[in-house]
Amino acid sequence: MDFEEKTLKRTEIFDGHVIKVVVDDVELPNNLGQAKRELIFHRGAVAVLAVTDENKIILVKQYRKAIEKVSYEIPAGKLEIGENGSEKDAAARELEEETGYSGDLKQIHEFYTAIGFCNEKIKLYQATHLQKVPNPRPQDDDEVLEILELSYQECMDLVKSGAIEDAKTIIALQYYALHFGG
Amino acid sequence: MDFEEKTLKRTEIFDGHVIKVVVDDVELPNNLGQAKRELIFHRGAVAVLAVTDENKIILVKQYRKAIEKVSYEIPAGKLEIGENGSEKDAAARELEEETGYSGDLKQIHEFYTAIGFCNEKIKLYQATHLQKVPNPRPQDDDEVLEILELSYQECMDLVKSGAIEDAKTIIALQYYALHFGG
Repeated sequence: MDFEEKTLKRTEIFDGHVIKVVVDDVELPNNLGQAKRELIFHRGAVAVLAVTDENKIILVKQYRKAIEKVSYEIPAGKLEIGENGSEKDAAARELEEETGYSGDLKQIHEFYTAIGFCNEKIKLYQATHLQKVPNPRPQDDDEVLEILELSYQECMDLVKSGAIEDAKTIIALQYYALHFGG
Repeated sequence: MDFEEKTLKRTEIFDGHVIKVVVDDVELPNNLGQAKRELIFHRGAVAVLAVTDENKIILVKQYRKAIEKVSYEIPAGKLEIGENGSEKDAAARELEEETGYSGDLKQIHEFYTAIGFCNEKIKLYQATHLQKVPNPRPQDDDEVLEILELSYQECMDLVKSGAIEDAKTIIALQYYALHFGG
């Protein structure tokens, strides 16, 4: 069985700061005819499951315009131009900017967030042996963030209440339960 | 601290079959000024961690145009118009169309896939006590799918090899390990 969809024509719709939108006309395999694919291209992102020496998980409280709600998530951020290949540095930068911590980073997962229509890939790290950075890099000036350090059980209460509804944060919490003994 | 970002102006960019794209000019809280938010609206989707009586996990092999690769994922599908509120029926339909099975469905998670710019929400179900449907609903005519039934260990081999890089599938596999005893 053949799977590949060949691009017959690509129509560029939007080229923004965060996302690029195209519509592809594709030829389906196995003589199934043609179809259209609406696609989002994104530079990719990093996220960090940061665990303190007291076994607390660091969460960031912030407003998410796409859902018009406040959300609790693990620290994360988009890759900047030219950062591909140094995702670990990007993860360290995001951790420092958002939380004021540095730590020992290790990659634990990587995944496409919305594989049906978007190529955004997140590399997820764990950070342990956290230390407060004396003069941390400032937060981005268009972000309003509040930092929390919560036990695994407190995080799971936020999942149950619906305050945590973010895929990367759920992956990080389940990883914690499997590997740090939730 | 105030978190909400008020919409000053919304510019509609694209209104497709799967996604809608807008750019919002927002007023940041706490007198931080203005910013732009590139946003994707999506109807939402359902996904199913289907576990056979032999403790095999059902995966779907398919081509994903956004990443130009073949991908292994749990069965899933977009909500159709009017299906909000009956996500469980949509999950049962996707399971039958993609795998030919029916089963006992129970919701286990719900999450936004790409919360930074997109409102797509996936409701994830487990399906157990699977039974082959005598005359299952046909697959969508623009999908080429191959169905596999794999042990948890075989699934984890696909994660290690990079063949499984899909967030919802990783969430489902972690859930299996935590609750079915991987």
